[in-house]
This record gives sequence, structure tokens and C-alpha cells, in this order.
Amino acid sequence: MAYINGIGKTKFGILNKSLAQIMYEAMMKAFDDSGLGISDIGAIFISNFLGGPCENQLHLNAVLASLMPGAFKPIVRIETACASGGSAIWQALLATNKFDNVMVIGAEKLSSLSTEGTTTAIAMAGDRQVDQSAGLIFPANYALMAQQHMRKYKTTHYDLELVALKAHENAKLNPLAHFFEKEITIDEIRRSPVVASPLTVYDCSPLTDGASAVIISKNRYEHSVEVIASALVTDTISLTQRDSLTSFPAAKIAARKAFDEANIAPEVVDVIELHDCFTIAELIGMEDIGICKPGESKEWIQEGKTTRYGDLPINPSGGLKGCGHPIGATGVSQVYEITAQLRGEAGKNQVVPSPEIGLTHNIGGVGGTAVITILRK
Amino acid sequence: MAYINGIGKTKFGILNKSLAQIMYEAMMKAFDDSGLGISDIGAIFISNFLGGPCENQLHLNAVLASLMPGAFKPIVRIETACASGGSAIWQALLATNKFDNVMVIGAEKLSSLSTEGTTTAIAMAGDRQVDQSAGLIFPANYALMAQQHMRKYKTTHYDLELVALKAHENAKLNPLAHFFEKEITIDEIRRSPVVASPLTVYDCSPLTDGASAVIISKNRYEHSVEVIASALVTDTISLTQRDSLTSFPAAKIAARKAFDEANIAPEVVDVIELHDCFTIAELIGMEDIGICKPGESKEWIQEGKTTRYGDLPINPSGGLKGCGHPIGATGVSQVYEITAQLRGEAGKNQVVPSPEIGLTHNIGGVGGTAVITILRK
Repeated sequence: MAYINGIGKTKFGILNKSLAQIMYEAMMKAFDDSGLGISDIGAIFISNFLGGPCENQLHLNAVLASLMPGAFKPIVRIETACASGGSAIWQALLATNKFDNVMVIGAEKLSSLSTEGTTTAIAMAGDRQVDQSAGLIFPANYALMAQQHMRKYKTTHYDLELVALKAHENAKLNPLAHFFEKEITIDEIRRSPVVASPLTVYDCSPLTDGASAVIISKNRYEHSVEVIASALVTDTISLTQRDSLTSFPAAKIAARKAFDEANIAPEVVDVIELHDCFTIAELIGMEDIGICKPGESKEWIQEGKTTRYGDLPINPSGGLKGCGHPIGATGVSQVYEITAQLRGEAGKNQVVPSPEIGLTHNIGGVGGTAVITILRK
Repeated sequence: MAYINGIGKTKFGILNKSLAQIMYEAMMKAFDDSGLGISDIGAIFISNFLGGPCENQLHLNAVLASLMPGAFKPIVRIETACASGGSAIWQALLATNKFDNVMVIGAEKLSSLSTEGTTTAIAMAGDRQVDQSAGLIFPANYALMAQQHMRKYKTTHYDLELVALKAHENAKLNPLAHFFEKEITIDEIRRSPVVASPLTVYDCSPLTDGASAVIISKNRYEHSVEVIASALVTDTISLTQRDSLTSFPAAKIAARKAFDEANIAPEVVDVIELHDCFTIAELIGMEDIGICKPGESKEWIQEGKTTRYGDLPINPSGGLKGCGHPIGATGVSQVYEITAQLRGEAGKNQVVPSPEIGLTHNIGGVGGTAVITILRK
């Protein structure tokens, strides 16, 4: 289908740099990794959610062009809330029909806003008439889902704590993670204050700045990883229009389409980067992808099946919870991390034995957008 | 390459409707026009610039999905400032490799903001560090270009008045134009107050709401118009980084690429929809496209060559000046208008003899983005 032929990523964290700076940094790292330069790139797809409120800056394609005057490339910006990165990759893959090499750069600079300002800005991913006016911000949305998951499947907060603990155990080793070298114990997680019951601080991904870039090529190069499927599916923006609060139909359908496109079964996946914007999202994501049955994700977590040494490592990078969730960068960063895993270059976060097939799961809002990408060594 | 197989457009003006409503209305009109339905559409590309400040609503792909629950389509949003519409069409064309039929919906709802709020919001299309901090908003940017064009080529404000008069003469006949049935005389234009010298009120396109949709298909149908070229080029975001103030390099390069791709010369174009966000932009656009030499556009205007009855009608719809400039909708609306012209269905705005080849010219900011699309009957 197409090949990931270069990856780059800034440190994720609170960065004293502008959107333009981190886009450029991630881009240059991907060039260094690939051996390609700007003249080899046919088009660039930028993924960003909140350039407007965070920097009063839209038209980011021209901002990027300003950093390479005279290049005159086709560059566009894609926005689908927290799934912007996956969506930009989906679009870039379509573009490999026309161009030999294309680039995706995801970037977000959340720390420019106050915490309250960020919450208000992120609420724009939810329906303005129903959800925003009712104060149904994202921690509240995911709390409703957690309540229903607990009620229906006897999931407990302890299961969520195990998800958070795993994320931090992995992020601790990842030099680019927001929470690199941060030691977190299950007791600290258990004692953390409630955000929206039953979710506590450690159930929520942090506000983070960062950028990621990948180069996607029509042809295979030396270090390439193959993209064998990419599926993007949209659904209603608000939970109030859904039949179930324990699953995202868009993610289930995207996963099924992606597995069909790749012509593989969920069982053969070796490693997953999953959109754990909240811990409950990891349990729901596992069930939506179809690696376990509805309600069984908690047992997988309890049995340690998804740790770095388990049968199916999930978020060995630290995920959104441990690496941070610079919104527009997240979906691109997931592909970065899976590519590193499939190349065997994930350092202390490397999954062993060396994985052959990896999957990324990127969600916008409360499942209004879902993008599943499958990669093969 | 691909075919325009359905078009739809709302009234352009101050509308008492939401972004969701006008997106839906334009979409349904395009379905009615094409005979296709949502089940025939493989993917949808939304073009919108200011959903954030105008409606506190991003994640518009999920907003649209909410209007057709159960459809689970791939939908994304594209933003490249005022060139968002052209950019979405450029992307949709890439997608016809994968999907038989795709849709582009451009929409903007500017009237939700105060005039001052809109000016601030639109300024996000300009560089935040250089232009925004200096107060270099878009009328000021284009005024600088007009001053230089006047100095270099002896263009006068009378030439700009003729551009405005032509726009209103055409818009007066177009039922979907913001200024439908509005009579404007050259005296009124001449007496209008200065906005940014030398530009006056009648040199500026108005703040307008509206939506447009087109369906693009891999195969030719009965009423299809062929897309024979589409070129998207980016440049520096700020005029302060440019060598010249009388031309947009991105537009010149995009036009050259498009003519190369279509394998035609500028001389064979029969009708143009040109991004006249300000009257001076029409003169510069004519020169950038290459239909006349630098500095000669004023003579074309003086000789009436670009009126509806001239050698090469430009903006027979009324353009941005006469129809309004609902930013995300504009580039899509241009393709709507050219398609209507090539089909011979442009009503009182129809160019005669029936045109064979049409071109759209869509600009973001002050030439940070340029998209040229060429269509053939």
C-alpha cells in the first residue's frame, strides 16, 4: 500500500517553543531519519487541532512554508479534533498515488493557554448545542462511559488504576515522554483526587505540547515499515445520540474495515498504540478493536497481558497517559512509536520478541472520529 | 482525471442558520443535482476556516456525521485560510483514486461574530508574530499591494472601481449572491469611505455566510464536467518575506503547474472565477494566472474584456465582491459556478458563447496558499 520511511518527534512536555518551532523540529528529525530532504517531498499534511485558541494562528500550512521559502510545496492542514493525526495520515496515504513521498506533521501547543482556557478550547470537539451548553466536557463524557462499563461488566476503579500504572511504567523509560523518569506508585494513583467520578487525575492524560512527523513513501526503502491498512470512520459527535455508552461504533467499524483491508485477524497483531486519553478509553478501545470480547478487557489488564512483556503489549511508549496528548501530534506519534517498535529501535520501550504487525487506534472527541492504521515490518 | 458530477449551494448572505444547517443544505442540493445519495459517497471533505471563533465548534466532520447517523463515512476537515475550499477539492481529487464518488462541502458562518470579532478572527490567517502584532490586517495588506501596483504600473483607483462595478453588475443577476438585485452605480462606488488607503468599502468583499458542495467522481456521468488540472502551492505567510508586492508567486506557480497538467495554454480559457477578496486582487490574479502581462490587467478592465460579454469573462457570478466571501465555502463555490457555466446552466449569469474551459483561482491570506483548478466541458 505505502511505506513509512522516516520518523521524527520532539520531546513531549511543557515546551518553551512555538508551534512553528516544534513543527520544524519534528520535520527535520524525520528528514534526518529518512535521508530524504524537502526536495524529495511531494506534499505535506499538517495535523493540528487548536492553533486558533492556543496561538491565534491558523493557516499553518503557510506558517510551515515560511520556514522553507522558495519550496512552494502543496501543504494543507487537517482537523478532526483528537483524531487529526490519524486523519492526516489517512489523507497522506491517498496522496501517495500522486506523489512518491509525502510527509505528515502533527503538532500542538496547549501550554499557551490556562488550564481553564484549554478545557474550554478542547470542548469545541464536542457538540456546542447539546454537550457544551450542558457542561459535558470530555472528562465528564468519559466518566459516564466508565460508570456504564462498571455497571455492565463489573469493571472497577482498580482496573483503571492498573491501566494508569502500566502507562507510567512504560513512559518512565521513554525519553520523549512527558512523564519520562517519573516514578508513580499504585498508591499515588489510588489517592489522586476525583476529576469526574469515577475518573481521578491519574485516569486523565495530561495537557502537553509536542510534534511528530512521518514520511510516507510509495516505494519500499531500506528501513521501511509497510502500511497495510488505514480506515477512517465518523459517527455522531455527542454521546446523547448513541445507543451504547460502553463502545465506540466508529472504532469498531474502522477496526473491522482495517482488518479486512489488511486481510488479517485481530489475533495476529503484536503491538498496539491505543488512544488512552482516559484510562477507561483503553479498556473500551481493546474491546472495540476486537482483541478481546466486550467486558473482558479488565481481565487482560489484571493478568498483565498488555504490559511490555505480555502477550499483546498496548501503549509500550506510555500512551497518551504517560507520553502526554499534544492533540494534533498524537495520531502521528502513535505511528512513530509503532514504526520504531517494528524496526526494533524502541530502546528501553522495545517489545520482545520483535513485533511483526502493529496497530494504531486514534479517536476524536467521544468517538465522533476513529482512525485505525495497521503496519507491518 | 475526475469529474464534477453534482453541485449545490445555499444562498450567500447573512443567514439565520447554523454551520450544520448550511452544510446539510448544500449537501442535499448536490445530491438532488447529481441523482446520487449518501450511500454512493466514499468520503467527504469539509472546508471551513472559522468554526472555532464563530460557533465555538470544531470537529465539524463529526457534526456532519451527526446529521446522518449510521452512515459512518470517512469525513475530514481541511483548513488553509481563505483557500480552504480549493484545498479541499485538491484533496478530494486525490481521493478519487480510492473512492468512486467523493464530496466536498465548504461552509462558513461569519455573521455569528461582531465585525470587530471577525476582523480579529480572520487575522489568524496572517502571521501572529509579524503581521498581527503590527496590526497588518488583510485590508491593510492588500492596500500595500494596491499602492505598489499603482506606483509600478500606473494603475488608478478608477481601475479598481471598474472591477467593483463589474462584480455588482453580475451579482445583481445571481439569485444566490449576497448582493442579488442590489443596484450599485460607479458614483456610489467612487464615494465610498476609505478602509485602508487606497482601498475603500467597495474594494472589499463583504462578510457573508454560506455553503457550497460539489460531488467529484472517478467516472463520467451524463452532466459531468471534467477536472483537467488542480494545483496547490504554498508560500510564506507574510508579505514581509516577499520580494514583490505586485504578484503572488504561489498563484503564478500554481497556474503554471495547472496549465502544464492540463496541457493547455492560458489563452484557451473561456471563463474564470477569480479570488477577488479585494478589487486589487482581481488585477493581480489576472496577471498571476498569465492571461495578461504584469501591469496590463487594468487595460483589460478598461476595455471591458472581462465583463460577461467580453473576450474572457471573469467572475460572471459576481465573484467574492458581489456574491460574498463565506471563507470556507468560497473555493467550492467557484467550482460550482464554473461547472454551472460549462453546463450552460448559469441562468442570467451565463456566458455566451457557451464556454468550454473554465478556471478557478483561490487564494489563502496574502498568497500564502494558492489553488488553481481547471475544468473542461
